Amino acid sequence: MKPPHGNALIGQSGGPTCVINQSLVGIVEAALAAKPIGKVYGALHGIKGVLEGRLVDLGKESKATLEAVARTPCAALRSVRKKPTREECEQALAAFKKHDVRYFFYIGGNDSAETAHVLNELAVAQGYDVRLFHVPKTIDNDLRVNDHCPGYGSAARFVAQAVMGDNLDNRSLPGIKIDVVMGRHAGWLTAASTLARIHPDDGPHLVYVPERVFTLERFLADVERVYRQHGRCLVAASEGIHGADGKTLVESKEKDSHGNVQLSGSGALGDLLAEEIKKNLGAKLRVRADTFGYLQRSFPGVVSPVDAKEARAVGRAAVRLATGTQHAHGSVAILRAPEGPYKVTFAHTELRNVARETRPMEPELLKGDSDVDARFLDYVRPLVGELPPVARLSDFPLA
Amino acid sequence: MKPPHGNALIGQSGGPTCVINQSLVGIVEAALAAKPIGKVYGALHGIKGVLEGRLVDLGKESKATLEAVARTPCAALRSVRKKPTREECEQALAAFKKHDVRYFFYIGGNDSAETAHVLNELAVAQGYDVRLFHVPKTIDNDLRVNDHCPGYGSAARFVAQAVMGDNLDNRSLPGIKIDVVMGRHAGWLTAASTLARIHPDDGPHLVYVPERVFTLERFLADVERVYRQHGRCLVAASEGIHGADGKTLVESKEKDSHGNVQLSGSGALGDLLAEEIKKNLGAKLRVRADTFGYLQRSFPGVVSPVDAKEARAVGRAAVRLATGTQHAHGSVAILRAPEGPYKVTFAHTELRNVARETRPMEPELLKGDSDVDARFLDYVRPLVGELPPVARLSDFPLA
Repeated sequence: MKPPHGNALIGQSGGPTCVINQSLVGIVEAALAAKPIGKVYGALHGIKGVLEGRLVDLGKESKATLEAVARTPCAALRSVRKKPTREECEQALAAFKKHDVRYFFYIGGNDSAETAHVLNELAVAQGYDVRLFHVPKTIDNDLRVNDHCPGYGSAARFVAQAVMGDNLDNRSLPGIKIDVVMGRHAGWLTAASTLARIHPDDGPHLVYVPERVFTLERFLADVERVYRQHGRCLVAASEGIHGADGKTLVESKEKDSHGNVQLSGSGALGDLLAEEIKKNLGAKLRVRADTFGYLQRSFPGVVSPVDAKEARAVGRAAVRLATGTQHAHGSVAILRAPEGPYKVTFAHTELRNVARETRPMEPELLKGDSDVDARFLDYVRPLVGELPPVARLSDFPLA
Repeated sequence: MKPPHGNALIGQSGGPTCVINQSLVGIVEAALAAKPIGKVYGALHGIKGVLEGRLVDLGKESKATLEAVARTPCAALRSVRKKPTREECEQALAAFKKHDVRYFFYIGGNDSAETAHVLNELAVAQGYDVRLFHVPKTIDNDLRVNDHCPGYGSAARFVAQAVMGDNLDNRSLPGIKIDVVMGRHAGWLTAASTLARIHPDDGPHLVYVPERVFTLERFLADVERVYRQHGRCLVAASEGIHGADGKTLVESKEKDSHGNVQLSGSGALGDLLAEEIKKNLGAKLRVRADTFGYLQRSFPGVVSPVDAKEARAVGRAAVRLATGTQHAHGSVAILRAPEGPYKVTFAHTELRNVARETRPMEPELLKGDSDVDARFLDYVRPLVGELPPVARLSDFPLA
């Protein structure tokens, strides 16, 4: 199976991350060096730019610009949340043909893998030789097959640092504090808040993830118990926590074309939980809620070095796979060496394996209904890197 | 006026900052070296710890612990929001006498200066020789007399980085985004969001501060205008924005003993503004709101080097003033050299000069109703330090 000669096109899709441009630049530099690839184009706003003919020539960018862009958060090619219709897939393929695009790299999460998958089905049906590759990216860390996803380590680092600081804040001025963390279907990012714990009384004291059914009664009992014990209580809750019926606590009417309901960009869940605590445990309690929001995926200067390195490498790996003789399409999966020191490999997987469905946290990584297991900390530590040191006074008594 | 011989006591009060422990350690190291000072104690939770007898011996801490604590955000001695009654002031003075406290340093904002002020009036009336000094600290930057306040530079840095990232996020996935920033009476912190602007189309496109009257009609017209021009709109709004009647848009029933109404720790203002935009400009618009919350004052690892250095120096300066022959009480004010490269001096000012009242942004630092003047950027840049570089693609057209 010889790789076709022609141009490459790159798109970025879905929610941004702090290292999504590392993958972009990894693809660009590898594609420019790959023999069968001619020009290297970028589509502005992902599949939308393909349909609207908004393409740019990435091969003309200087090395210095590419390096600076790689270190910049959020999609440099700009992004989109769009599931193309059958008709739009045909239009996209027509655009590929027009520009002799024989390599298409789509950097994104499971929805973007799905877009690559449907495009690929059509290309195969039409007999058009284009190598369609999905390049993984998501702060949610919920792509199947992968041990972890590029973007997660840096977002997890932001959450860990934020909760480290908030734990110190809560210790300074005690009360009940709720931190709402991104994560629709999976609790990976919320779970990373537990990296903030150093001393036995450090928060987060309670951790709620979408993998567990959330009940208000148990939540209130948990908060009351912790508050009695520590005189304060720090809670980390995923935006996607839901009752036994699968319904999230706050439902927006807004959906994207993949059918995802809007959860982020509002403080409603945190405020609702804070209200319930005041109503049920005491109106005079000091209860506050913060929703970390888009800062988790876009904050410049808080990046996991391992995450940045792997995001770059995954882009290069995608080009290597796409220009090889084994696979006409697929996604790159990050696999971790099962033993020994932390090490990863980049493997091929079929588009359908990472499309649509998401990967929740495995049950053994969770402990009870409101905590994570020590195995999760072993899992997450190498992905996040060393955190800023914080220290306490010894509180020596007076002589 | 000879400095008295006796022990020193330190307290931290009000909302934490990322460098409040630099000031604590600055006081500890200078006090331990000062001849008239014997032991150096700390009060846990500020004036509350004085009243409850919760004192610790800071002189026993190792140099390594003190250095590590100095770099840790939030009050290491823990904090409090408490205005002591007349009776409590008498109890506090009794505690001073019991422990032979002749130097009291209270690190905090204008409310803490007020506490130091009332304590001092009573000590003078009782003829008890104790040197009462307020050490400035507030992310709000609203202490009078001071050019700027320790804690502000680091919080401003957090806000600038957050809005840099959010501007890139908003450019990736266009829509209308509202970022709510701390600041009850003054817009200093919200104004720092304008450091995020690099290109002419970068946000924040609109900046609303408490120094200006906020009207919903003008806000909606502003947002519509920017959205038409750029296809997106990024707004930075202070939590303390208010109408002509002085009332904030969302009023909580919760007040502290200084009479401050709770504004932070809720997403209500951002959500209200987002709702108004959808209701008035179109339900289908992509509108999101983030409230930066307590992260602004507690996030470890995002610190302005200048701020950290000055916070340490202001603690040392307080001990120098307190053990001198000129002043029996007062506060340390940071003054900036009026010309030449950035340079500060630490001057004495009376407690009443920084107590109670706050300092809004000067009119010449603002531009119209929804922007800052270039003079503000000249003012704020040296306080924040160099920001992480971010870059754009050149968007070269196809040949």
